[in-house]
Amino acid sequence: MKSVVHFYVTYFLCLIFGVICVICVVHWNSKWRGGFAWDGSALQFNCHPVMMVTGLVVLYGNAAVLYRIPWTWAQEKQSWKLLHAALLFFAMIMCILGLCAAFNFHNTNHIPNLYSLHSWVGISTATLFILQWLLGLAIFILPCSPAACRKLLKPVHIWMGSMIFIMAIASCLTGINEKLIFISQGKANATQRYSALPSEAVFANTLGVLITAFGLLVLKILFSQRWQRPEDDCNENTPLLPP
Amino acid sequence: MKSVVHFYVTYFLCLIFGVICVICVVHWNSKWRGGFAWDGSALQFNCHPVMMVTGLVVLYGNAAVLYRIPWTWAQEKQSWKLLHAALLFFAMIMCILGLCAAFNFHNTNHIPNLYSLHSWVGISTATLFILQWLLGLAIFILPCSPAACRKLLKPVHIWMGSMIFIMAIASCLTGINEKLIFISQGKANATQRYSALPSEAVFANTLGVLITAFGLLVLKILFSQRWQRPEDDCNENTPLLPP
Repeated sequence: MKSVVHFYVTYFLCLIFGVICVICVVHWNSKWRGGFAWDGSALQFNCHPVMMVTGLVVLYGNAAVLYRIPWTWAQEKQSWKLLHAALLFFAMIMCILGLCAAFNFHNTNHIPNLYSLHSWVGISTATLFILQWLLGLAIFILPCSPAACRKLLKPVHIWMGSMIFIMAIASCLTGINEKLIFISQGKANATQRYSALPSEAVFANTLGVLITAFGLLVLKILFSQRWQRPEDDCNENTPLLPP
Repeated sequence: MKSVVHFYVTYFLCLIFGVICVICVVHWNSKWRGGFAWDGSALQFNCHPVMMVTGLVVLYGNAAVLYRIPWTWAQEKQSWKLLHAALLFFAMIMCILGLCAAFNFHNTNHIPNLYSLHSWVGISTATLFILQWLLGLAIFILPCSPAACRKLLKPVHIWMGSMIFIMAIASCLTGINEKLIFISQGKANATQRYSALPSEAVFANTLGVLITAFGLLVLKILFSQRWQRPEDDCNENTPLLPP
């Protein structure tokens, strides 16, 4: 019972931190970066952090911990499997839109793509995520894979999922840090430079800390053995769609 | 048997990647940043990435996976506990020296401290690491804490250790990205800018990828349940030093 209460406190914090992260990344880009558009301008680039934090971190993190909610254990796993896949599908679409926003802004403004460590880690994370989602669909939802294959690949799927999430957190932190330095480069006024910690820098740094806290909460839930859904071999080895 | 072979392959890769990360961070700062000194100059700052990658990532990661080596399971845990604490002590000393190198360089050159997201995440990681080490010493090695306390705090210690390691990886990636942008700012020649991916940028980006790979290997070992040292309550509840 104590463990269940502890879980729901952690899960509630996870939900709260997730919502705060989304509000903060939207607020940062609305208040200090001029808002949003889809016209190849800097306003289009502002969609990039919003889509990445919302899709690749908050939605992804919530989809990952779905099976850990004790309330769902008494229910059939299949519907939760579908919700898990659906949430990750929306996360993937947001991730792809976020990438398009950055690439389109770069191409329109003749800025090279994929040169920084942020972009290297970020594009690797997005690629692994898309592969993971497609493989997850083929193995755990479509009826084309044998039960033995699903059983064999389940731990790999769980581990890869967690690693992609950690890489997503690292990508967001490098991205926020990079963005704040780039903004600072154009400032003639010393008090507006990153090193003088103007209000925007304090706010975006805090967003980075909140993303880290959200990530650690999700990982706490994912890696606590006592919070894992009890094994259900019958459901586990049944594809969602009948052959 | 298969699981043991799989472990040793992963552990061997972990050792190899760790050594390569140390060689790469030393080579980066020797070849492109002018080498090392302890005189408040940029050469002193070069000690910062070397100490952080070597101490907070490679030494820390290797200390964390020490208990997972199956070869050690037949042996008394106490000596491995002492080696775990000793490796982390050296990691902590390197981390403190690495912080001193950065702070001293900043202070000598009138550069503000602790303004970037890299520094916020980095200083939080170092603080948590030092607290974790001191608490680990008090609880698991010195004879002052009761057995029940050790049993209760062991999962917290393991989880905190993993989270500090993930934060250390994120700190290194933000730090490498930030350093490459700062270097690029002073370049008049466009082909030497970060966006043109000169050889230094490719090398340091690759170091970031190698650190990520090393981190994922360590986390693979840490979070695989089948690779956990079998529980040994007798040893577990005995402090290293007799009361």
